Amino acid sequence: MTNTAKKISPDVVYHQATVTRPRREQILGHNGAVLWFTGLSGAGKSTLAHAVEEELHNRNCLTYVFDGDNVRHGLCGDLGFSLEDRKENLRRISEMCKLTADAGIIAFTAFISPVQEDRQNAKALIGEDDFIEIYCKASLEVCEGRDVKGLYKKAREGIISDFTGISSPYEEPENADLIVDTGTNTLEECTNQVLGYLFRRGIFISARK
Amino acid sequence: MTNTAKKISPDVVYHQATVTRPRREQILGHNGAVLWFTGLSGAGKSTLAHAVEEELHNRNCLTYVFDGDNVRHGLCGDLGFSLEDRKENLRRISEMCKLTADAGIIAFTAFISPVQEDRQNAKALIGEDDFIEIYCKASLEVCEGRDVKGLYKKAREGIISDFTGISSPYEEPENADLIVDTGTNTLEECTNQVLGYLFRRGIFISARK
Repeated sequence: MTNTAKKISPDVVYHQATVTRPRREQILGHNGAVLWFTGLSGAGKSTLAHAVEEELHNRNCLTYVFDGDNVRHGLCGDLGFSLEDRKENLRRISEMCKLTADAGIIAFTAFISPVQEDRQNAKALIGEDDFIEIYCKASLEVCEGRDVKGLYKKAREGIISDFTGISSPYEEPENADLIVDTGTNTLEECTNQVLGYLFRRGIFISARK
Repeated sequence: MTNTAKKISPDVVYHQATVTRPRREQILGHNGAVLWFTGLSGAGKSTLAHAVEEELHNRNCLTYVFDGDNVRHGLCGDLGFSLEDRKENLRRISEMCKLTADAGIIAFTAFISPVQEDRQNAKALIGEDDFIEIYCKASLEVCEGRDVKGLYKKAREGIISDFTGISSPYEEPENADLIVDTGTNTLEECTNQVLGYLFRRGIFISARK
């Protein structure tokens, strides 16, 4: 049987992928990347990420935002909020971002990610060429004043424990690629700042339009 | 401080994503999908997946193959090969595929995935519109005859335990979308069969070239 089988399908041998990352990026017209937004709850990470995404999409870029909504209920649905589970949550997100960057996507993450070591791990895992750390800087007072989701109120009342900024520390990024003042600048100003940075960093291979 | 903060950044409010899946698919010119290849070790899942990928890429499709190499060492690097861990492995892969299909990518998975229930779970999770189950059908004799990686030999010698087809069952798909005879047909024939199916299923929005 063995020899027969080999004769029947002589061309079916194990072979490597021929579609490489540069070939995918050529189709897309831009490089894969991971824009890692970090900052307090209410600092405007998601808002800014979606605003930048809209602008990039309008320039024919393929983008995707990973946030609590699509990750915490899915890939990381088995994880809680212990220190260990938070680490594992960010590890899986990092691994997924590594793959999507390899696929050519410009991925965004909009998680508080308050621990410097976790962000450094993400950078090491994803690779510094692809990892862009964007610190959405806004004071606790500003963020708490917004309290769009009512989370700060609950944290102050003790309904939510270990809430970053209230009952759990936020470690400011030591080596952010970009610091965006989302506490006082307008969304348009912040968006332009990110787009300008991406342009200078050479994320666009060519204009497709 | 609260009121001041609200005045300073009146436009920074929480808002939903504006870049939707249909908009991403419009850029790409095709729909997101998950091509779930299943079959014995040596049946030619990876080989066929990469061959189909090459053809799709040459038609400007954005593709990505998930296999043991890029998943088992990364996202699922913490998992072993117990029944429970294998289930969790496929669950995470399914969740990731769900996200990449939402991103517009045509994703391929090339895992043995021997258990019918696991594949059904993947289908339920990913959604039947996006999930395409492709059974790479080749007899154990053919696969063992190829034994490209020398795994069957090790399984027969007892060096590898719970090896699908030898010491662990492979449950043939009950409702595969496509059955490809990778045991006797040529790679070109198999590739054409998959491409034809994708075309009929309406994965291509328009030709970009």
